[in-house]
Amino acid sequence: MSVSRTVKAQPLTAEAFAPFGQVIEATGEPSFLINNGRCGRYHDLARPEILGERAEVTLSVGRSDSVSLPYTLDLLERHPLGSQAFVPMAATPMLVMVAPDVGGKPGEPVAFLSKAGQGVQYHAGAWHGVLAPLNGPADFLIVDRVGSGDNLEEVSLAEPFLIVE
Amino acid sequence: MSVSRTVKAQPLTAEAFAPFGQVIEATGEPSFLINNGRCGRYHDLARPEILGERAEVTLSVGRSDSVSLPYTLDLLERHPLGSQAFVPMAATPMLVMVAPDVGGKPGEPVAFLSKAGQGVQYHAGAWHGVLAPLNGPADFLIVDRVGSGDNLEEVSLAEPFLIVE
Repeated sequence: MSVSRTVKAQPLTAEAFAPFGQVIEATGEPSFLINNGRCGRYHDLARPEILGERAEVTLSVGRSDSVSLPYTLDLLERHPLGSQAFVPMAATPMLVMVAPDVGGKPGEPVAFLSKAGQGVQYHAGAWHGVLAPLNGPADFLIVDRVGSGDNLEEVSLAEPFLIVE
Repeated sequence: MSVSRTVKAQPLTAEAFAPFGQVIEATGEPSFLINNGRCGRYHDLARPEILGERAEVTLSVGRSDSVSLPYTLDLLERHPLGSQAFVPMAATPMLVMVAPDVGGKPGEPVAFLSKAGQGVQYHAGAWHGVLAPLNGPADFLIVDRVGSGDNLEEVSLAEPFLIVE
């Protein structure tokens, strides 16, 4: 299977990522100080989106193998009933791959390179690739949905994309 | 103000911490594998507890100064309307201080030393100290409540405790 299409990974910024979700990071000035000024709180960066019946937010940890660039993107998935946040528990960069929805299928993918200290939340229904730390295996806090209903759609890409630096 | 009472910090384990909340970490075998076996998911470790009216879960980041041992514990707080999770975004240990409730006031405190890769969620209403990373300033993902109502009680300890290793 040849890879005919390449996508250049771009720096992960809140603005560029906005159509797909939120970037979770401490950047600029904090919203306010807590703990007698000893801690800056960057407040309310993302709210979990939880749809459907009998559903709740839950915290899990994902321990993921790492990937390297160039990376062959051949699978995208989405969760119509809930957002998913992935926040690294160590100072690791990751590859973040998303795609707009085009008539119920993923369109042309967009790839981001995160910096250490950045996590993401994908909107409910946003097409995205799998967890992809870049500098060795890493643990991520996952904030997503538990509940009833079918919350997973996967699409294998007949023509994969090559994600490059 | 003299510190007459000392408390020895103990290793943070799920069992010892259970009265106060959950430890968020990847330990032992994962609950199941995701991403074609490339990622182990430690599933459903803690669910945010959100009480009261017009309330939601939100994700924030706290950028905290560090503390050192011995540490003078002179303030405890609690949030009657919601849990709070603090998960380090870098591989940093922290000091975790909690206390049982005794008639609406904090009782004798209990102190834990976390390892890199461990976070905690405090139950709604659990007395706890402030965010206290040990090896320099650190960022933490905070998962807690936004909503109406008075969700903060603070108690200054007339006789502080000295937390020691």
